Amino acid sequence: MRGPEVPEVVVVRLPLYVRALTTMLTEGLEVVSSQQLGSRLLMTPAQIRKDLSYFGRFGKQGRGYNVRFLLQELRRILALDIEWRACLVGVGRLGRAIINYPGFAPEAFNIVAAFDHDEEQVGTKVGDILVRSMSELPSTVESLGISIGIVAVPATQAQRVIEHLVANGVRGILNYAPVAPKVPEGTVIRNIDPVLSLQSMTFYLRESLQTTPA
Amino acid sequence: MRGPEVPEVVVVRLPLYVRALTTMLTEGLEVVSSQQLGSRLLMTPAQIRKDLSYFGRFGKQGRGYNVRFLLQELRRILALDIEWRACLVGVGRLGRAIINYPGFAPEAFNIVAAFDHDEEQVGTKVGDILVRSMSELPSTVESLGISIGIVAVPATQAQRVIEHLVANGVRGILNYAPVAPKVPEGTVIRNIDPVLSLQSMTFYLRESLQTTPA
Repeated sequence: MRGPEVPEVVVVRLPLYVRALTTMLTEGLEVVSSQQLGSRLLMTPAQIRKDLSYFGRFGKQGRGYNVRFLLQELRRILALDIEWRACLVGVGRLGRAIINYPGFAPEAFNIVAAFDHDEEQVGTKVGDILVRSMSELPSTVESLGISIGIVAVPATQAQRVIEHLVANGVRGILNYAPVAPKVPEGTVIRNIDPVLSLQSMTFYLRESLQTTPA
Repeated sequence: MRGPEVPEVVVVRLPLYVRALTTMLTEGLEVVSSQQLGSRLLMTPAQIRKDLSYFGRFGKQGRGYNVRFLLQELRRILALDIEWRACLVGVGRLGRAIINYPGFAPEAFNIVAAFDHDEEQVGTKVGDILVRSMSELPSTVESLGISIGIVAVPATQAQRVIEHLVANGVRGILNYAPVAPKVPEGTVIRNIDPVLSLQSMTFYLRESLQTTPA
Protein backbone atom coordinates (compact mmCIF):
# COMPACT_ATOMS: atom_id res chain seq x y z
CA MET A 1 0.00 0.00 0.00
CA ARG A 2 2.98 2.30 0.49
CA GLY A 3 4.43 4.12 -2.48
CA PRO A 4 8.18 4.48 -2.32
CA GLU A 5 7.91 8.18 -3.21
CA VAL A 6 5.96 9.49 -0.24
CA PRO A 7 7.24 13.00 0.52
CA GLU A 8 8.88 13.37 3.92
CA VAL A 9 6.66 16.30 4.92
CA VAL A 10 3.68 13.99 4.52
CA VAL A 11 5.31 11.27 6.63
CA VAL A 12 6.07 13.86 9.30
CA ARG A 13 2.37 14.73 9.52
CA LEU A 14 1.22 11.12 10.01
CA PRO A 15 2.09 10.97 13.73
CA LEU A 16 -0.21 13.97 14.23
CA TYR A 17 -3.02 11.95 12.69
CA VAL A 18 -2.12 9.01 14.91
CA ARG A 19 -2.36 11.22 18.01
CA ALA A 20 -5.68 12.76 17.00
CA LEU A 21 -7.16 9.36 16.12
CA THR A 22 -5.92 7.85 19.38
CA THR A 23 -7.72 10.62 21.27
CA MET A 24 -10.84 10.09 19.18
CA LEU A 25 -10.77 6.37 19.89
CA THR A 26 -10.56 6.96 23.65
CA GLU A 27 -13.50 9.34 23.25
CA GLY A 28 -15.51 6.51 21.74
CA LEU A 29 -15.70 7.93 18.24
CA GLU A 30 -16.10 5.16 15.67
CA VAL A 31 -16.21 7.03 12.39
CA VAL A 32 -14.50 10.28 11.47
CA SER A 33 -14.69 12.45 8.35
CA SER A 34 -11.69 14.25 6.88
CA GLN A 35 -13.63 17.38 7.84
CA GLN A 36 -13.71 16.36 11.52
CA LEU A 37 -10.10 15.24 11.53
CA GLY A 38 -9.20 18.49 9.80
CA SER A 39 -11.03 20.55 12.38
CA ARG A 40 -8.96 18.90 15.14
CA LEU A 41 -5.70 19.57 13.38
CA LEU A 42 -6.79 22.78 11.65
CA MET A 43 -5.96 21.33 8.28
CA THR A 44 -8.16 21.37 5.24
CA PRO A 45 -10.03 18.12 4.54
CA ALA A 46 -8.43 18.13 1.09
CA GLN A 47 -4.94 18.20 2.61
CA ILE A 48 -5.79 15.26 4.84
CA ARG A 49 -7.34 13.24 2.02
CA LYS A 50 -4.30 14.00 -0.15
CA ASP A 51 -1.86 12.94 2.59
CA LEU A 52 -3.74 9.70 3.22
CA SER A 53 -4.12 8.98 -0.49
CA TYR A 54 -0.38 8.24 -0.68
CA PHE A 55 -1.04 5.10 1.32
CA GLY A 56 -4.21 3.76 -0.20
CA ARG A 57 -7.94 4.10 0.31
CA PHE A 58 -9.04 4.15 3.92
CA GLY A 59 -12.65 5.20 3.64
CA LYS A 60 -15.59 5.16 1.29
CA GLN A 61 -16.53 8.40 -0.45
CA GLY A 62 -18.87 10.33 1.82
CA ARG A 63 -18.81 7.78 4.65
CA GLY A 64 -15.73 8.87 6.55
CA TYR A 65 -13.01 6.74 8.05
CA ASN A 66 -13.35 3.98 10.62
CA VAL A 67 -11.29 5.41 13.46
CA ARG A 68 -9.89 2.12 14.73
CA PHE A 69 -9.02 0.85 11.27
CA LEU A 70 -7.38 4.09 10.12
CA LEU A 71 -5.38 4.31 13.34
CA GLN A 72 -4.25 0.72 13.01
CA GLU A 73 -3.26 1.23 9.39
CA LEU A 74 -1.35 4.43 10.09
CA ARG A 75 0.46 2.77 12.98
CA ARG A 76 1.36 -0.10 10.66
CA ILE A 77 2.51 2.30 7.93
CA LEU A 78 4.67 4.20 10.40
CA ALA A 79 5.96 0.89 11.78
CA LEU A 80 4.69 1.75 15.24
CA ASP A 81 3.32 -1.78 15.62
CA ILE A 82 6.78 -3.18 16.32
CA GLU A 83 9.26 -2.62 19.12
CA TRP A 84 12.18 -0.33 18.35
CA ARG A 85 15.40 -0.54 20.28
CA ALA A 86 17.45 2.54 20.89
CA CYS A 87 20.75 3.36 22.52
CA LEU A 88 21.68 6.62 24.16
CA VAL A 89 25.07 8.25 23.73
CA GLY A 90 26.01 10.84 26.33
CA VAL A 91 24.90 10.20 29.89
CA GLY A 92 24.96 13.77 31.19
CA ARG A 93 22.05 15.64 32.70
CA LEU A 94 20.07 15.51 29.48
CA GLY A 95 20.98 11.90 28.77
CA ARG A 96 19.79 10.87 32.22
CA ALA A 97 16.53 12.72 31.71
CA ILE A 98 16.06 10.98 28.37
CA ILE A 99 16.62 7.53 29.90
CA ASN A 100 14.07 8.32 32.59
CA TYR A 101 11.56 9.85 30.18
CA PRO A 102 8.32 7.92 30.63
CA GLY A 103 7.02 8.66 27.11
CA PHE A 104 9.14 6.28 25.07
CA ALA A 105 8.19 2.85 26.41
CA PRO A 106 4.39 3.15 25.95
CA GLU A 107 5.08 3.87 22.28
CA ALA A 108 7.33 0.80 22.04
CA PHE A 109 10.57 2.76 21.85
CA ASN A 110 12.91 1.08 24.28
CA ILE A 111 16.28 2.43 25.30
CA VAL A 112 18.28 -0.73 25.90
CA ALA A 113 21.83 0.62 26.21
CA ALA A 114 23.75 3.76 27.10
CA PHE A 115 27.28 4.86 26.26
CA ASP A 116 29.60 7.59 27.45
CA HIS A 117 33.14 8.71 26.68
CA ASP A 118 33.71 9.44 30.35
CA GLU A 119 35.27 6.30 31.86
CA GLU A 120 34.07 7.40 35.31
CA GLN A 121 30.49 6.97 34.14
CA VAL A 122 31.14 3.55 32.65
CA GLY A 123 29.83 0.76 34.84
CA THR A 124 27.35 3.00 36.67
CA LYS A 125 23.63 2.58 36.16
CA VAL A 126 20.98 5.08 35.11
CA GLY A 127 17.66 3.52 36.08
CA ASP A 128 17.97 -0.02 34.78
CA ILE A 129 20.47 0.88 32.10
CA LEU A 130 24.16 0.13 32.46
CA VAL A 131 26.48 2.83 31.12
CA ARG A 132 28.95 1.24 28.75
CA SER A 133 32.23 2.33 27.26
CA MET A 134 32.17 3.69 23.71
CA SER A 135 34.40 0.80 22.72
CA GLU A 136 31.49 -1.58 23.42
CA LEU A 137 29.19 0.26 21.02
CA PRO A 138 29.75 -1.88 17.90
CA SER A 139 29.17 -5.23 19.61
CA THR A 140 26.26 -3.93 21.70
CA VAL A 141 24.42 -2.45 18.73
CA GLU A 142 24.68 -5.77 16.97
CA SER A 143 23.86 -8.09 19.88
CA LEU A 144 20.90 -6.05 21.14
CA GLY A 145 19.47 -5.24 17.71
CA ILE A 146 19.64 -1.48 18.12
CA SER A 147 18.20 0.59 15.26
CA ILE A 148 18.02 4.07 16.76
CA GLY A 149 20.75 6.18 18.35
CA ILE A 150 19.78 9.02 20.66
CA VAL A 151 22.58 11.57 20.78
CA ALA A 152 22.91 13.75 23.86
CA VAL A 153 26.58 14.67 23.68
CA PRO A 154 28.01 18.20 23.50
CA ALA A 155 27.63 19.97 20.17
CA THR A 156 31.31 19.61 19.32
CA GLN A 157 31.16 15.81 19.62
CA ALA A 158 27.84 15.23 17.89
CA GLN A 159 29.04 14.80 14.31
CA ARG A 160 31.72 12.27 15.31
CA VAL A 161 29.37 10.29 17.53
CA ILE A 162 26.72 10.14 14.83
CA GLU A 163 29.24 8.93 12.26
CA HIS A 164 30.32 6.25 14.70
CA LEU A 165 26.72 5.11 15.22
CA VAL A 166 26.03 5.04 11.48
CA ALA A 167 29.26 3.15 10.79
CA ASN A 168 28.02 0.51 13.20
CA GLY A 169 24.66 -0.01 11.55
CA VAL A 170 22.42 2.46 13.37
CA ARG A 171 20.11 3.96 10.75
CA GLY A 172 17.96 6.33 12.81
CA ILE A 173 19.42 9.26 14.74
CA LEU A 174 17.55 11.41 17.21
CA ASN A 175 19.93 14.30 17.74
CA TYR A 176 19.58 16.50 20.83
CA ALA A 177 22.83 18.37 20.22
CA PRO A 178 22.06 21.83 18.89
CA VAL A 179 23.84 21.33 15.59
CA ALA A 180 22.74 20.07 12.18
CA PRO A 181 24.94 17.04 11.55
CA LYS A 182 25.42 15.48 8.13
CA VAL A 183 24.38 11.87 7.66
CA PRO A 184 24.85 9.56 4.70
CA GLU A 185 22.03 8.47 2.38
CA GLY A 186 19.85 5.82 3.96
CA THR A 187 20.15 7.30 7.44
CA VAL A 188 17.23 9.18 9.00
CA ILE A 189 18.03 12.00 11.35
CA ARG A 190 15.68 14.10 13.43
CA ASN A 191 17.14 17.21 14.97
CA ILE A 192 15.57 19.00 17.84
CA ASP A 193 15.10 22.43 16.30
CA PRO A 194 14.75 25.13 18.93
CA VAL A 195 14.65 28.08 16.52
CA LEU A 196 11.57 26.78 14.73
CA SER A 197 9.86 26.44 18.10
CA LEU A 198 10.82 29.96 19.13
CA GLN A 199 9.68 31.42 15.83
CA SER A 200 6.12 30.30 16.36
CA MET A 201 6.20 31.42 19.99
CA THR A 202 6.98 35.09 19.42
CA PHE A 203 3.71 35.52 17.53
CA TYR A 204 2.03 35.24 20.90
CA LEU A 205 4.63 37.17 22.86
CA ARG A 206 4.85 40.34 20.86
CA GLU A 207 2.16 42.10 22.82
CA SER A 208 4.49 41.65 25.76
CA LEU A 209 6.25 44.81 26.86
CA GLN A 210 9.51 43.01 27.48
CA THR A 211 10.85 43.40 23.97
CA THR A 212 13.55 45.62 22.62
CA PRO A 213 13.73 46.87 19.02
CA ALA A 214 16.49 44.98 17.24
CA MET B 1 -4.04 42.58 9.70
CA ARG B 2 -3.86 39.87 12.35
CA GLY B 3 -7.06 38.29 13.48
CA PRO B 4 -7.03 37.42 17.16
CA GLU B 5 -8.45 33.99 16.38
CA VAL B 6 -5.64 32.54 14.28
CA PRO B 7 -5.40 28.81 15.08
CA GLU B 8 -2.14 27.75 16.66
CA VAL B 9 -1.48 25.02 14.09
CA VAL B 10 -1.50 27.73 11.43
CA VAL B 11 0.93 29.89 13.42
CA VAL B 12 3.21 26.88 13.83
CA ARG B 13 3.37 26.50 10.05
CA LEU B 14 4.39 30.11 9.39
CA PRO B 15 8.07 29.62 10.29
CA LEU B 16 8.20 26.92 7.62
CA TYR B 17 7.02 29.48 5.10
CA VAL B 18 9.62 31.93 6.41
CA ARG B 19 12.37 29.35 5.87
CA ALA B 20 11.22 28.42 2.37
CA LEU B 21 10.86 32.09 1.36
CA THR B 22 14.27 32.95 2.80
CA THR B 23 15.80 30.20 0.67
CA MET B 24 13.89 31.43 -2.38
CA LEU B 25 15.10 34.98 -1.81
CA THR B 26 18.72 33.83 -1.67
CA GLU B 27 18.07 31.94 -4.91
CA GLY B 28 17.01 35.20 -6.52
CA LEU B 29 13.35 34.33 -6.90
CA GLU B 30 11.20 37.48 -6.93
CA VAL B 31 7.69 36.12 -7.30
CA VAL B 32 6.29 32.83 -6.06
CA SER B 33 2.93 31.17 -6.54
CA SER B 34 1.14 29.22 -3.83
CA GLN B 35 1.71 26.27 -6.17
CA GLN B 36 5.50 26.75 -6.10
CA LEU B 37 5.58 27.38 -2.37
CA GLY B 38 3.40 24.31 -1.91
CA SER B 39 5.71 22.16 -3.98
CA ARG B 40 8.64 23.13 -1.72
CA LEU B 41 6.73 22.28 1.43
CA LEU B 42 4.60 19.52 -0.08
CA MET B 43 1.44 21.29 0.91
CA THR B 44 -1.53 21.96 -1.30
CA PRO B 45 -1.74 25.51 -2.71
CA ALA B 46 -5.19 25.78 -1.12
CA GLN B 47 -3.76 25.02 2.33
CA ILE B 48 -1.13 27.72 1.89
CA ARG B 49 -3.63 30.30 0.62
CA LYS B 50 -5.94 29.45 3.51
CA ASP B 51 -3.14 29.79 6.09
CA LEU B 52 -2.02 33.13 4.67
CA SER B 53 -5.59 34.41 4.38
CA TYR B 54 -5.74 34.68 8.18
CA PHE B 55 -3.31 37.55 7.97
CA GLY B 56 -4.58 39.51 4.98
CA ARG B 57 -4.02 39.58 1.26
CA PHE B 58 -0.43 39.19 0.18
CA GLY B 59 -0.79 38.70 -3.54
CA LYS B 60 -3.05 39.45 -6.46
CA GLN B 61 -5.19 36.63 -7.82
CA GLY B 62 -3.16 34.76 -10.40
CA ARG B 63 -0.02 36.85 -9.98
CA GLY B 64 1.64 35.11 -7.10
CA TYR B 65 3.38 36.60 -4.10
CA ASN B 66 6.30 38.99 -4.07
CA VAL B 67 8.87 36.89 -2.20
CA ARG B 68 10.58 39.75 -0.38
CA PHE B 69 7.30 41.38 0.64
CA LEU B 70 5.69 38.15 1.83
CA LEU B 71 8.79 37.19 3.79
CA GLN B 72 8.94 40.64 5.39
CA GLU B 73 5.26 40.51 6.30
CA LEU B 74 5.47 37.00 7.77
CA ARG B 75 8.52 37.99 9.79
CA ARG B 76 6.61 41.01 11.06
CA ILE B 77 3.53 38.89 11.87
CA LEU B 78 5.67 36.39 13.76
CA ALA B 79 7.45 39.29 15.49
CA LEU B 80 10.79 38.11 14.11
CA ASP B 81 11.69 41.71 13.22
CA ILE B 82 12.51 42.52 16.84
CA GLU B 83 15.15 41.24 19.24
CA TRP B 84 13.98 38.71 21.82
CA ARG B 85 15.84 38.21 25.03
CA ALA B 86 15.96 34.83 26.66
CA CYS B 87 17.40 33.37 29.82
CA LEU B 88 18.54 29.81 30.33
CA VAL B 89 17.80 27.84 33.47
CA GLY B 90 20.00 24.81 34.06
CA VAL B 91 23.64 25.06 33.07
CA GLY B 92 24.43 21.39 32.68
CA ARG B 93 25.73 19.72 29.56
CA LEU B 94 22.60 20.54 27.61
CA GLY B 95 22.39 24.08 28.97
CA ARG B 96 25.98 24.76 27.93
CA ALA B 97 25.29 23.44 24.47
CA ILE B 98 22.23 25.67 24.19
CA ILE B 99 24.21 28.77 25.20
CA ASN B 100 26.82 27.95 22.59
CA TYR B 101 24.29 27.11 19.89
CA PRO B 102 25.07 29.36 16.92
CA GLY B 103 21.52 29.32 15.54
CA PHE B 104 19.79 31.67 17.95
CA ALA B 105 21.61 34.98 17.47
CA PRO B 106 21.20 35.24 13.66
CA GLU B 107 17.46 34.95 14.25
CA ALA B 108 17.58 37.72 16.87
CA PHE B 109 17.06 35.38 19.81
CA ASN B 110 19.63 36.39 22.38
CA ILE B 111 20.39 34.47 25.53
CA VAL B 112 21.36 37.23 27.95
CA ALA B 113 21.39 35.40 31.28
CA ALA B 114 21.79 31.92 32.77
CA PHE B 115 20.73 30.51 36.12
CA ASP B 116 21.47 27.37 38.05
CA HIS B 117 20.48 25.92 41.41
CA ASP B 118 23.99 24.61 41.90
CA GLU B 119 25.90 27.26 43.85
CA GLU B 120 29.18 25.85 42.54
CA GLN B 121 28.17 26.89 39.05
CA VAL B 122 27.16 30.38 40.13
CA GLY B 123 29.75 32.99 39.22
CA THR B 124 31.31 30.87 36.47
CA LYS B 125 30.93 31.85 32.84
CA VAL B 126 29.63 29.88 29.87
CA GLY B 127 30.88 31.69 26.82
CA ASP B 128 30.09 35.32 27.57
CA ILE B 129 27.24 34.49 29.91
CA LEU B 130 27.61 34.69 33.68
CA VAL B 131 25.85 31.92 35.61
CA ARG B 132 23.65 33.51 38.27
CA SER B 133 21.97 32.20 41.36
CA MET B 134 18.26 31.36 41.09
CA SER B 135 17.63 34.07 43.68
CA GLU B 136 18.72 36.67 41.13
CA LEU B 137 16.15 35.51 38.60
CA PRO B 138 13.35 37.97 39.41
CA SER B 139 15.51 41.10 39.29
CA THR B 140 17.47 39.92 36.24
CA VAL B 141 14.37 39.11 34.20
CA GLU B 142 13.08 42.60 34.90
CA SER B 143 16.29 44.56 34.42
CA LEU B 144 17.34 42.78 31.21
CA GLY B 145 13.85 42.65 29.71
CA ILE B 146 13.73 38.88 29.35
CA SER B 147 10.65 37.44 27.64
CA ILE B 148 11.67 33.85 27.01
CA GLY B 149 12.85 31.17 29.43
CA ILE B 150 14.78 28.20 28.10
CA VAL B 151 14.47 25.31 30.55
CA ALA B 152 17.23 22.69 30.60
CA VAL B 153 16.84 21.33 34.12
CA PRO B 154 16.14 17.70 35.07
CA ALA B 155 12.60 16.49 34.44
CA THR B 156 11.74 16.48 38.14
CA GLN B 157 12.56 20.18 38.49
CA ALA B 158 11.01 21.44 35.27
CA GLN B 159 7.50 22.22 36.51
CA ARG B 160 8.75 24.20 39.50
CA VAL B 161 11.30 26.15 37.44
CA ILE B 162 8.71 27.01 34.82
CA GLU B 163 6.27 28.24 37.45
CA HIS B 164 9.03 30.39 38.90
CA LEU B 165 9.78 31.89 35.49
CA VAL B 166 6.12 32.59 34.77
CA ALA B 167 5.61 34.11 38.24
CA ASN B 168 8.39 36.53 37.37
CA GLY B 169 6.91 37.71 34.10
CA VAL B 170 8.42 35.30 31.57
CA ARG B 171 5.66 34.52 29.07
CA GLY B 172 7.44 32.19 26.64
CA ILE B 173 8.90 28.85 27.70
CA LEU B 174 11.09 26.62 25.57
CA ASN B 175 11.16 23.40 27.55
CA TYR B 176 13.90 20.86 26.93
CA ALA B 177 12.98 18.69 29.90
CA PRO B 178 11.22 15.55 28.68
CA VAL B 179 7.97 16.29 30.48
CA ALA B 180 4.81 18.15 29.54
CA PRO B 181 4.55 20.93 32.12
CA LYS B 182 1.37 22.87 32.81
CA VAL B 183 1.43 26.61 32.24
CA PRO B 184 -1.21 29.25 33.00
CA GLU B 185 -3.29 31.01 30.35
CA GLY B 186 -1.30 33.69 28.56
CA THR B 187 1.93 31.70 28.64
CA VAL B 188 3.28 30.03 25.52
CA ILE B 189 5.19 26.81 25.91
CA ARG B 190 7.00 24.75 23.32
CA ASN B 191 8.08 21.29 24.38
CA ILE B 192 10.73 19.35 22.63
CA ASP B 193 8.79 16.23 21.71
CA PRO B 194 11.05 13.28 21.01
CA VAL B 195 8.29 10.72 20.49
CA LEU B 196 6.76 12.67 17.61
CA SER B 197 10.19 12.77 15.99
CA LEU B 198 10.73 9.06 16.46
CA GLN B 199 7.29 8.23 15.09
CA SER B 200 8.05 9.76 11.72
CA MET B 201 11.49 8.15 11.67
CA THR B 202 10.43 4.54 11.92
CA PHE B 203 8.57 4.82 8.62
CA TYR B 204 12.01 4.87 7.00
CA LEU B 205 13.62 2.36 9.32
CA ARG B 206 11.20 -0.49 9.07
CA GLU B 207 12.98 -2.15 6.18
CA SER B 208 15.90 -2.43 8.56
CA LEU B 209 16.58 -5.93 9.84
CA GLN B 210 17.32 -4.71 13.34
CA THR B 211 13.79 -4.84 14.63
CA THR B 212 12.09 -7.23 16.96
CA PRO B 213 8.38 -7.98 17.00
CA ALA B 214 6.80 -6.29 20.02
